Amino acid sequence: MEKDVTKVNLADKFSQFSDHWNPRVVGELNGQQVKLARFLGPFEWHHHAHEDEFFLVVKGAFEMHLRDKVVTLEPGEFMIVPRGVEHKPVANQEAEVLLFEPASTLNTGNLEDSDRTRKDLERL
Amino acid sequence: MEKDVTKVNLADKFSQFSDHWNPRVVGELNGQQVKLARFLGPFEWHHHAHEDEFFLVVKGAFEMHLRDKVVTLEPGEFMIVPRGVEHKPVANQEAEVLLFEPASTLNTGNLEDSDRTRKDLERL
Repeated sequence: MEKDVTKVNLADKFSQFSDHWNPRVVGELNGQQVKLARFLGPFEWHHHAHEDEFFLVVKGAFEMHLRDKVVTLEPGEFMIVPRGVEHKPVANQEAEVLLFEPASTLNTGNLEDSDRTRKDLERL
Repeated sequence: MEKDVTKVNLADKFSQFSDHWNPRVVGELNGQQVKLARFLGPFEWHHHAHEDEFFLVVKGAFEMHLRDKVVTLEPGEFMIVPRGVEHKPVANQEAEVLLFEPASTLNTGNLEDSDRTRKDLERL
């Protein structure tokens, strides 16, 4: 039997949640996950020891603060933050962001038990 | 020293090539690659034995033909084709597509030496 293969509409998935800094899983492949998140305001400085992290802005904009610079990401722009690199996303307006990263990646990285840590992410 | 972390603008990368079915590598993370490709016309039926493949339409549209159905993908829509599932992309208009897949993935999958096979992809 053919596996069920369906498309995912990003706007439809984003319409299903409104909270911030709480990624939803919308796809899995090759041990990686595709996640969607809404960013608003400043997040925490953190890094991921073993995972590189991909951020693509779908709507809105956010700043990725690195220790030596700030990069502003707008719709149609992505950034890969390599493992070990400290970063802090800051969204001065709401941003809709697609993430691609290993299934093991925790949103707060080395801050494993921050009050902003989200485990057991919802699947949409 | 901080690793060089920069953003990538999809429109800027797409402006750097115009040929079809010839993916460019624009990012690498966790053994996976981010690729951009322009689709136009029908591609070949193929499958990937060991790799799941992610397609996100950035601009234009294309049909993903599967053996039991056809799914039309428009901007802001993605599909994951699991390993082993035969598929044939068909673009009735030009489509700009972002792909995530393992660095090992060949564009023509099991058709390893088709005249449409592209190895040693250009990096933009």
